[in-house]
Amino acid sequence: MNRVLVFGAGGVGAYFGGRLAQAGMEVSVICRSDFEHVRDKGFEIESGAGNMLFRPAGVYEKCTAYPGTPDYLIVTSKVLPDFDVAAHIAPAVGPGTVIVLLQNGIDIEKDIARAFPDNEIASGIAYIGVYRLGEGRIKHQAAGRLKLGNYPGGFISPQVQYLVDKFVEARVDCEAVNDIELFRWIKLVWNTPYNPVSVLSGGVDTQVISKTPELEKICENLMREICQAAAAYGKELPDDIVERNLEYTRNFPAYKTSMLLDYENKRPMEVEAIVGNVMRLAQRKGLCLPYLETTYALLRSVNKINLETPFSLPIEVVNS
Amino acid sequence: MNRVLVFGAGGVGAYFGGRLAQAGMEVSVICRSDFEHVRDKGFEIESGAGNMLFRPAGVYEKCTAYPGTPDYLIVTSKVLPDFDVAAHIAPAVGPGTVIVLLQNGIDIEKDIARAFPDNEIASGIAYIGVYRLGEGRIKHQAAGRLKLGNYPGGFISPQVQYLVDKFVEARVDCEAVNDIELFRWIKLVWNTPYNPVSVLSGGVDTQVISKTPELEKICENLMREICQAAAAYGKELPDDIVERNLEYTRNFPAYKTSMLLDYENKRPMEVEAIVGNVMRLAQRKGLCLPYLETTYALLRSVNKINLETPFSLPIEVVNS
Repeated sequence: MNRVLVFGAGGVGAYFGGRLAQAGMEVSVICRSDFEHVRDKGFEIESGAGNMLFRPAGVYEKCTAYPGTPDYLIVTSKVLPDFDVAAHIAPAVGPGTVIVLLQNGIDIEKDIARAFPDNEIASGIAYIGVYRLGEGRIKHQAAGRLKLGNYPGGFISPQVQYLVDKFVEARVDCEAVNDIELFRWIKLVWNTPYNPVSVLSGGVDTQVISKTPELEKICENLMREICQAAAAYGKELPDDIVERNLEYTRNFPAYKTSMLLDYENKRPMEVEAIVGNVMRLAQRKGLCLPYLETTYALLRSVNKINLETPFSLPIEVVNS
Repeated sequence: MNRVLVFGAGGVGAYFGGRLAQAGMEVSVICRSDFEHVRDKGFEIESGAGNMLFRPAGVYEKCTAYPGTPDYLIVTSKVLPDFDVAAHIAPAVGPGTVIVLLQNGIDIEKDIARAFPDNEIASGIAYIGVYRLGEGRIKHQAAGRLKLGNYPGGFISPQVQYLVDKFVEARVDCEAVNDIELFRWIKLVWNTPYNPVSVLSGGVDTQVISKTPELEKICENLMREICQAAAAYGKELPDDIVERNLEYTRNFPAYKTSMLLDYENKRPMEVEAIVGNVMRLAQRKGLCLPYLETTYALLRSVNKINLETPFSLPIEVVNS
């Protein structure tokens, strides 16, 4: 139970992979964009909790290159409809491999569970502010907590508990939970409003949203719709969750959502994982959620147009 | 009853002003941007119905320069919160002046009615495809109908009937109506969905909207909300109005809405006249219209950000 392969080693993958290496596990990574740099020099992780140099046991461009199969295959790539994670990881998945999905959104496990019906699937949520500074350079900005559970929930397997223990050994605030789905819903209450609204409003940070009453009201209504959808799936979220999320965001420093950063950098946004899936889950229960529907339709189109349109520069800069 | 002053002589003002001149009225214009050109050379209007040179009786930069007062002051400027039309036209409004608001949107008459309580207010809707090609050059592309009525409605004054007759004399399909508000609601059923959605979806034409099921669905839901709001004000719109508007747009050639053109040219969009006012009217009747609220909140923010952000060029163009 010592071999770990991290698939999609961006900020989240590098950080948590590095932690597991600190706990003595043999951590390799699949890493496309910075492959040569990371192979030669590893990851430099800047963190307020102490800088960390993470030299993976192996660095590969593809799972086919990984020797043997890992005990844990931790997926930290984005959830995108055009990106078939199952096909990419299949060559490295052995009979005993636990597949750990450390990704955003809801209802994101089913494709993997269907593709690997005989493997244990774990699902996890990362609460962390971490991003890529440059080649092999990662900035860990804030937090760094994890919740891990089995999918579908209802129990905690020895394999999941072992991984949680390893994280804790590496001083990560990591908790094993019976019902990871509940925490996905709770995280959605923040993600589903603020991420799309920050993009669709023309590109604003969280403070602008909080200070613009009609925008904050849209976020509030989206939160209430998420709570309705969660309730339809038997997850009764606490009564004050909406007010607490609004309050938290008002008091948090101005923050650009990950979706806005993706938008500005013309990277695909996680439209389905964060907005589309929850809308479809709600529709399946007969709910009509107009704020969510509007948000989804507009965001899907904006994402498409954004990826088709070349980068641009302000004319003032061009002429100077 | 022969003196006409057109305030805000863009495409709509130049076209209909020119028509009234053809019917023998003395038509002057207030024209800021192309002032010198129009003063010296008039308007050249290209039209499938026959090209037209319109030399106004007088061309002025401001209403203060207009000699005396007109019988009809026709306002064709955009409806924008920061633009105080009442203050601009006041110097030209005499005791007998009929103020004719030939503008988009709903609930746009009240500020003028309040500012000029003793003047007759007429309200009109133009159904026309017309735009500015360049200095003093106007392209009349399609249609060119008018509906005119008194504000508030319930009757047609001799003054309004006289103006309608003059338009008809100039071969404009112009109708005097008892209840202009009804026609504003009907026009809103198209304007309030397609204008904002074309912008908020990342900038798409009407054909893209019609062919993207989830975007067309948002338009459909917005239409139904407009019908609800209209009904709350005693205007029962025909049952099939939604289906007819969807169908019409599907069969109409790809078309960039005026709001999208304003957005792309970084001109202020008529957010309040076309979206905000109807939302507030609905709220005053206790209606909750989520599609409209979401659209309004996002569009208002996009408009603000768009006007603050400089023009940009695609990097490919910059580097070539």
